[in-house]
Amino acid sequence: MTRYRNNNKRRAKAPAKAIQKNKEKVRPPFRIIPLGGMKEIGKNCTLIECNDEILIIDCGFAFPEYEMFGIDIVIPDFTYLKENIEKVKGLIITHGHEDHIGGIPYLLQEMSVPVFASPLAMGMIEHKLEEYYLNCEGHVIKSGDRFSIGCFSVEAIQTNHSIADSLAYSIKFPGGHVVHTGDFKIDYSPLDGKVIDLNRFSQLGDQGVDVLLCDSTNVLRKGYTPSEAVVRRSIDEIFDNTDRRIIIATFASNVHRIKYFIEASMEHHRRIAVSGRSMENLLALSRSLGYLDDIPDSVFVDVSEARNIADNKITIITTGSQGEPMSALTRMAYDNHKSIKLKKNDVVVFSSSPIPGNEKVISQIVNRLYEKEVDVVLASAMDVHVSGHASSEELKLIHTLIRPKYFIPAHGEYRHLAEHAKLANALGQSKDRIFILGNGDALEVNGKETHLVREFTSGEDVMVDGYGIGDVGSVVLKDRKKLSQAGLITISVALDSATGALMAEPILKTKGFIFVEEHMDLIREAINVVYNTIGKSTSKGALDEASLSRAIKSDMKTFIYNTTKKSPMIIPVILYV
Amino acid sequence: MTRYRNNNKRRAKAPAKAIQKNKEKVRPPFRIIPLGGMKEIGKNCTLIECNDEILIIDCGFAFPEYEMFGIDIVIPDFTYLKENIEKVKGLIITHGHEDHIGGIPYLLQEMSVPVFASPLAMGMIEHKLEEYYLNCEGHVIKSGDRFSIGCFSVEAIQTNHSIADSLAYSIKFPGGHVVHTGDFKIDYSPLDGKVIDLNRFSQLGDQGVDVLLCDSTNVLRKGYTPSEAVVRRSIDEIFDNTDRRIIIATFASNVHRIKYFIEASMEHHRRIAVSGRSMENLLALSRSLGYLDDIPDSVFVDVSEARNIADNKITIITTGSQGEPMSALTRMAYDNHKSIKLKKNDVVVFSSSPIPGNEKVISQIVNRLYEKEVDVVLASAMDVHVSGHASSEELKLIHTLIRPKYFIPAHGEYRHLAEHAKLANALGQSKDRIFILGNGDALEVNGKETHLVREFTSGEDVMVDGYGIGDVGSVVLKDRKKLSQAGLITISVALDSATGALMAEPILKTKGFIFVEEHMDLIREAINVVYNTIGKSTSKGALDEASLSRAIKSDMKTFIYNTTKKSPMIIPVILYV
Repeated sequence: MTRYRNNNKRRAKAPAKAIQKNKEKVRPPFRIIPLGGMKEIGKNCTLIECNDEILIIDCGFAFPEYEMFGIDIVIPDFTYLKENIEKVKGLIITHGHEDHIGGIPYLLQEMSVPVFASPLAMGMIEHKLEEYYLNCEGHVIKSGDRFSIGCFSVEAIQTNHSIADSLAYSIKFPGGHVVHTGDFKIDYSPLDGKVIDLNRFSQLGDQGVDVLLCDSTNVLRKGYTPSEAVVRRSIDEIFDNTDRRIIIATFASNVHRIKYFIEASMEHHRRIAVSGRSMENLLALSRSLGYLDDIPDSVFVDVSEARNIADNKITIITTGSQGEPMSALTRMAYDNHKSIKLKKNDVVVFSSSPIPGNEKVISQIVNRLYEKEVDVVLASAMDVHVSGHASSEELKLIHTLIRPKYFIPAHGEYRHLAEHAKLANALGQSKDRIFILGNGDALEVNGKETHLVREFTSGEDVMVDGYGIGDVGSVVLKDRKKLSQAGLITISVALDSATGALMAEPILKTKGFIFVEEHMDLIREAINVVYNTIGKSTSKGALDEASLSRAIKSDMKTFIYNTTKKSPMIIPVILYV
Repeated sequence: MTRYRNNNKRRAKAPAKAIQKNKEKVRPPFRIIPLGGMKEIGKNCTLIECNDEILIIDCGFAFPEYEMFGIDIVIPDFTYLKENIEKVKGLIITHGHEDHIGGIPYLLQEMSVPVFASPLAMGMIEHKLEEYYLNCEGHVIKSGDRFSIGCFSVEAIQTNHSIADSLAYSIKFPGGHVVHTGDFKIDYSPLDGKVIDLNRFSQLGDQGVDVLLCDSTNVLRKGYTPSEAVVRRSIDEIFDNTDRRIIIATFASNVHRIKYFIEASMEHHRRIAVSGRSMENLLALSRSLGYLDDIPDSVFVDVSEARNIADNKITIITTGSQGEPMSALTRMAYDNHKSIKLKKNDVVVFSSSPIPGNEKVISQIVNRLYEKEVDVVLASAMDVHVSGHASSEELKLIHTLIRPKYFIPAHGEYRHLAEHAKLANALGQSKDRIFILGNGDALEVNGKETHLVREFTSGEDVMVDGYGIGDVGSVVLKDRKKLSQAGLITISVALDSATGALMAEPILKTKGFIFVEEHMDLIREAINVVYNTIGKSTSKGALDEASLSRAIKSDMKTFIYNTTKKSPMIIPVILYV
């Protein structure tokens, strides 16, 4: 891992604005191709291609959608990158969330690409790559840094988000100037004191931006997203008003917020125990990177010792704010945690809000906590969490500072992109300069005209399941769905390969269908159905495997549906002896 | 179906208050047993038992929880009622929602019980029973009615809720006096003008109430739930400001709201088309019961003719506000609707809010609508829906009017019941008079003492799947889950029953595991594994079916996991020839 060396010198040689303007007449064309993150939340990945060079911005994964049974994660389709492997010059990362870095191991399995990321994101990437026995050429960068990747002059710009060191990027190259905000919000009082660099956005706007890609996640929210300072006040209130044990669940990557939990604990003479693998890993990483330099090691105590400390002298910071089944908080709620046994009047704070789809499982955990007479503090009742994404008024500010020639709403479901397009239009951006792209679409820009190429390359979901990448297609998923609904029946028969005579009693097995012990009569009847089918078929001379299988399947399906109104999968197996 | 005859005369004979007080010394004991609706949302069903007589209040179903694969619905366990069938005197219904009436067919399959319900609820019950070829002794009642069921003197009290004619019940009997609110809110300006009968609640409070059971659904919401009048204003605003086609999705049973949609349409010279089977059924029922008496038939137009009517002359009222896969709105969104083709600038109003768990599927529909450039109006952006449940301040009012001796929070997950208990306690009810019950628990009350009997009878979920009631247990569900994650492999082998020699090549089939065509080499290797296992086992003399099956399963599991990191279900079948 080499530390990136600032190349401001090189930037100094860049042509002055006047010359640039002159050059515009002969600018080469370029294209922007999102491979993920459009019309969806997750797996963000965008390409800029110019002069036969490709720069990648972010490479995330998405969690499987509803009915993607058994799928672990979903990654972008890297086909276009594989087909143009010699063009790929580098990958720049806006921040360390999984929907921005989670796809990197799968990309690096296909090709070698230098990766540029802030210290925390790079630490998380390295940790991830170790799990896959992969290596990469990593360049640690920070906000304000300027560096070149092929023909792309990249500048990292400070933003605010729910993870430390989030960056936007200004990318200048022979074809034009693109700004990508990454995930961001505008926080005038962030916990680390580093306010989003609005001045720089303003300067870039003055210089002229051809294309802006901007986070759309919270466009449906009116007004402003509150500052992290709001969370600080609520946390202070909790610490000031209880002498009970405090357990706080939050996202492991929100380093500054966790740091504040630690500081508040110290102020109230509480020590800190950390529970949950990802929380422990991230805290270790944050400490090694200096994010917690002013926190003495002596404040921390191993979670196994937490029970020996008085309730008003301990804070436990834990994973599980999304109700993840194996997380520390879930284990506490179900009495499966090795060290922490929840008790009456413990204060459990969810410093988080449910990610859509997790509502029900979180409810289950909350109900368990109520049953233990724990005091549960949710973000719906107290400001113990704020979003990391800009609401509509903040988006208006960014558009107004940057005033791009073209606008691509990014990071959102279709409705978010569409509302973001409306927002830009309402600010005066003309509709023909706003482009809603799908994954795999391309926006092609040259000096004269700009047009959108639908399905320029594959923007499909690639499903990862076990070691297999992309080998789970729609047939397999359909089968899994069918199996989940009513299980299966296997019917195995052995036939004499010459005469077609039955050589053994057919064996019928079921799984996930009914409770067999209570339905032996049904099974016996079903076996009779098999005998009848075979008798009927062999008397007709239909002895080939395919037609006999079809007959067994069809007769059994009818019998089972008529008797049970269920449609299990039916799998005939014929062995010719 | 007989119409209930008011028995006020009988009530007139009831003992005066002074005598009642005297009698209290010798009151017989009674118990309250919830069979459903406690620590959950759904399948509400509560029993009151006194003098060997049982009165049932509501009999609903619940939708299956997360991971109840293939389950259609969940109903209460009627074991206690079946065991005490001669005690069961009647079933009174608070209102016609599925979580209050959906279990009735399953109860009536077990026993014959007279059912008492308001006209709309009774119409819905009859319709439901027809589907099951069932009949019942139905008594149509309305608010203000008083009637006897065995030793129970029942009085129906007007409330407000998101369905017409919702009732609370005052139930007086030799053992005491119980009030059950049913689902309710306090609406001072309901669309039908029938405000909840607060005066009657106050009078009952004066008379003395032993036990109050009260809706807890919205206890976590501060303040007051807004009136339906708010929805009316928003609907007016929409109708006043568009000349486009208006499509409104809402709950079919919210008859008064739907009536208002019709009235607003008429005022704007729009005709009404109705789409969706449940919406059509409920509208027909409402018309036949007189809920729409002042609406002329000529206003309605068949949905197949809607496309021939100018956009500003038609309103379409539809099902699908919860994103139900086969509903009319979903079919419109996916271009599968026979008559309605959505087009740019159609206005689609979701007069509903997502039921927890439906958020993601509704999002998908909304995104589809945005892609069609339809104007989507959601309750999160405009007041086109209000809840039907009382918020905390309304609950405080009811407690204050009724001042019960004992309080049982009803209808809610554990956290709702617990917060409702806290609310009552904060109003002065002492903790030892507040009882949080689980399904199957009983509160036993007699003149001297009151105590809670945990697990008095079964309060289990009974899962309904196809024709089968309760034959899907946890093993079947676990198998379905496993199958949904990685599918299955069947391995069929035919062995000589005497020598154990293989009589045919083993056959390996997979479903929901991998895309076989692309992994023929894996299948071949797997068949080799089977040969090896059989060779190894037969050389050891292990020929019995059980141990050979175990060996095949275990070796295959290891092989598959090591090569694919997946764990499909493995089903060995051995045929002895």
